[in-house]
Amino acid sequence: MINWCEQPIYRLAQAIEKKVVSVREVIDSTLCRIAAHDRSLNVYTAVLADRARYEADKADQLIATGHYRGPLHGVPISIKDLIDVAGVPTTSASRASNPTAAERDATAVARLRTAGAIIIGKCNLHEFAFGTTGEDSCFGPTLHPLDKTRSPGGSSSGSAVSVATGMAFGSVGTDTGGSIRIPAAACGLVGLKPTFGEISCDGVTPLAPSLDHVGPLARCVEDARLLYETMRNTPPDPEKTALPTRRILGCPKPFFLEQLDREIRTSFEHSLTRLQSTGWIIRDTAVDHALYSPAVCLHLVLSEAAATHMRGLTTRADHYTDGVRLRLELGRYVMGEDYARAHHGRLVLGEAIDAALDSCDALVLPTLPIPAPQLATTTVNIGNQPELLRSVMLRLTQLFNATGHPAISLPCGLTTGGLPCGLQLIGRLNRTDHLLNVAEAIEVAINDRPRPTAQ
Amino acid sequence: MINWCEQPIYRLAQAIEKKVVSVREVIDSTLCRIAAHDRSLNVYTAVLADRARYEADKADQLIATGHYRGPLHGVPISIKDLIDVAGVPTTSASRASNPTAAERDATAVARLRTAGAIIIGKCNLHEFAFGTTGEDSCFGPTLHPLDKTRSPGGSSSGSAVSVATGMAFGSVGTDTGGSIRIPAAACGLVGLKPTFGEISCDGVTPLAPSLDHVGPLARCVEDARLLYETMRNTPPDPEKTALPTRRILGCPKPFFLEQLDREIRTSFEHSLTRLQSTGWIIRDTAVDHALYSPAVCLHLVLSEAAATHMRGLTTRADHYTDGVRLRLELGRYVMGEDYARAHHGRLVLGEAIDAALDSCDALVLPTLPIPAPQLATTTVNIGNQPELLRSVMLRLTQLFNATGHPAISLPCGLTTGGLPCGLQLIGRLNRTDHLLNVAEAIEVAINDRPRPTAQ
Repeated sequence: MINWCEQPIYRLAQAIEKKVVSVREVIDSTLCRIAAHDRSLNVYTAVLADRARYEADKADQLIATGHYRGPLHGVPISIKDLIDVAGVPTTSASRASNPTAAERDATAVARLRTAGAIIIGKCNLHEFAFGTTGEDSCFGPTLHPLDKTRSPGGSSSGSAVSVATGMAFGSVGTDTGGSIRIPAAACGLVGLKPTFGEISCDGVTPLAPSLDHVGPLARCVEDARLLYETMRNTPPDPEKTALPTRRILGCPKPFFLEQLDREIRTSFEHSLTRLQSTGWIIRDTAVDHALYSPAVCLHLVLSEAAATHMRGLTTRADHYTDGVRLRLELGRYVMGEDYARAHHGRLVLGEAIDAALDSCDALVLPTLPIPAPQLATTTVNIGNQPELLRSVMLRLTQLFNATGHPAISLPCGLTTGGLPCGLQLIGRLNRTDHLLNVAEAIEVAINDRPRPTAQ
Repeated sequence: MINWCEQPIYRLAQAIEKKVVSVREVIDSTLCRIAAHDRSLNVYTAVLADRARYEADKADQLIATGHYRGPLHGVPISIKDLIDVAGVPTTSASRASNPTAAERDATAVARLRTAGAIIIGKCNLHEFAFGTTGEDSCFGPTLHPLDKTRSPGGSSSGSAVSVATGMAFGSVGTDTGGSIRIPAAACGLVGLKPTFGEISCDGVTPLAPSLDHVGPLARCVEDARLLYETMRNTPPDPEKTALPTRRILGCPKPFFLEQLDREIRTSFEHSLTRLQSTGWIIRDTAVDHALYSPAVCLHLVLSEAAATHMRGLTTRADHYTDGVRLRLELGRYVMGEDYARAHHGRLVLGEAIDAALDSCDALVLPTLPIPAPQLATTTVNIGNQPELLRSVMLRLTQLFNATGHPAISLPCGLTTGGLPCGLQLIGRLNRTDHLLNVAEAIEVAINDRPRPTAQ
């Protein structure tokens, strides 16, 4: 018998449509998975079991009467607990958040519901999405399903683990510096940050508004595309012709490939070799000034996060975790002229990325320079060099938040220790559709090993 | 005999094309005007007399051989001395500027030259464009041609006076908070700030890059349109259909009409009445949160100007005028979180303007709340209320720099003392073409009194 909880949405959808499996069965097995693994992994901040069962029965009735709503009909989706779901408080994994229930769904959630999705629960995260590991949370850290001494990456930590372990078929996360792509890479999933602004941030607790993106975590590119297309603000533009895929990827070696864990490098190079053997051309390229991207991103995120949390810091600073409060407070000391310089820097870097994309379909680079990190560490050795964990985690992803370019992380095999590695593709602004085409074309070639599930 | 120096470009162009007047004659009379008035008004920082005469002769030869280049062929244009002209130092009216000659023309200047324009000279300005009166300049203040105890407005002070007095037929200025529209209003000219980014700032000394705009000062809307279309980055988009003019203007009374000099209010209301009598509908409207626009703009401009001048302040602070240095130094104390909040504010305000524009062709408001101010004053009385001059000067213009909406100032009569008044129209983002159509349609109705010339 097929274990539906481990299938991609598009296969589950066929089975639901053809009544091979009922929505109620799917919801019940998903709730079983949650009952079995949630306590040990600390994934959900709220499980909406009764509501999900009620909606499942309604979804089955609709199918019985011939009202199938499409590929998300009856599919259990989890939501990062930074995003409003009507009737449930949005905790942002913080005691400093508003404890009253959200009055209505965030726009992205409402769109999923209209398409038939069932919201199964809300997921743990790094407090207010301001971290890369998921450790600073008033609910405690989410643990990596393959190794409970490790972080699954963050800030969308619970979202990633829910999908990786079959506690949901897809999840909605947010990404301000890599918070979708980082846990996707660390957990062997697909994580998509669309072009800036393509999915509404309405009903989403802001962190740094000029960097915040909403996007899906999923088991394959097709699922990520389905969730993205359902959530985005505007329907596909019929006048926007499909870009032909030239089967050329640009690999920006300077800065991006300089500091990688040995095993991540091996896995990445192995992926490139496999791509070449299937007819892809890999060209060396460079993003000018990429060296400055950490400084640019740091000034943007610190200033904006401090502005967002001004009231919280003033009235209830002791409600934040120490780690997050410290970084928010730090943001209050950034000068306006530095923010202004960073804003100029992001424009220059955006043009450099555009230029690098001119001669290829997408840029290709790793997502995370290291495998899922050990919990409770602040530094990590790359080569023999100790580096700040946070800087390492953000190094390859955050630039594309500052410039708004769409970026996707795909699983590309495992380390010898069995931890997932992620490969990242960067596409043209406002051409997330084309990026998804490229990702779909290379997905199988780079991931010949099976996706991990819960221990 | 017609005095060509007082004609709009489009009339001069006909005369040049039909050889009614030679380009050399036009240049010589323009240089005569400069010789007669420049010393007393302090308009030009450099007059390119020899080069202009040489180019005039070449332009006449081209016409003689049937190579007429279009309506800017042989037309003398002045350039704000913040914008590069090859072979001449860009002084920015500051001893702190780079004293070496610019290697090439700014993009906007190069486009005018390609269209046949002759650059007659470079114009005085408020140092580094950071002021509204033109008084802080290493060359001394530019004086108002109708009253030498008054400022012609700034920062494009010299540009405005050059066009108002027939020392040029049009001028290129920059506008970061109103620096084209303010002197246009104070001198009885048309001043256009296009949509943000439509004219390249390449070769233009930046002040606050997210607010800086390049645009024309001219004697009529048709001339402003010609200069704008010649300078802008992209040719008109054939797919962008002309918006029909509904003959409805929205007048945002709250905030914008609250503090006006009595005579300015009379002139503005007189203009609205005339418009109504010619079939225009004037609707009361409001820009939500407009009250916050001064704070939003102040934080943006201070931070960005401090960032732009970081090196200058560090290495040669004593080369700046006291007034400008003081404000630049002030910018160094703005916090990043305040800049970030201002950045959020500009987005909210931009949406409010879009909403107000939904039900009309353009917003209509005065350009300047007062007539050309007396020199050497820092406060001004409106009603019986003393106000900071600088805040008053920027009050009605700066918001549209923050949001990027196109804005144009048109002359709308004179005060009883004979000083010009300005009426401002605000159009939809990226529809500067439509704004110009509206401006052209109302231009004659609102300005029944003649344009002033040099005393």
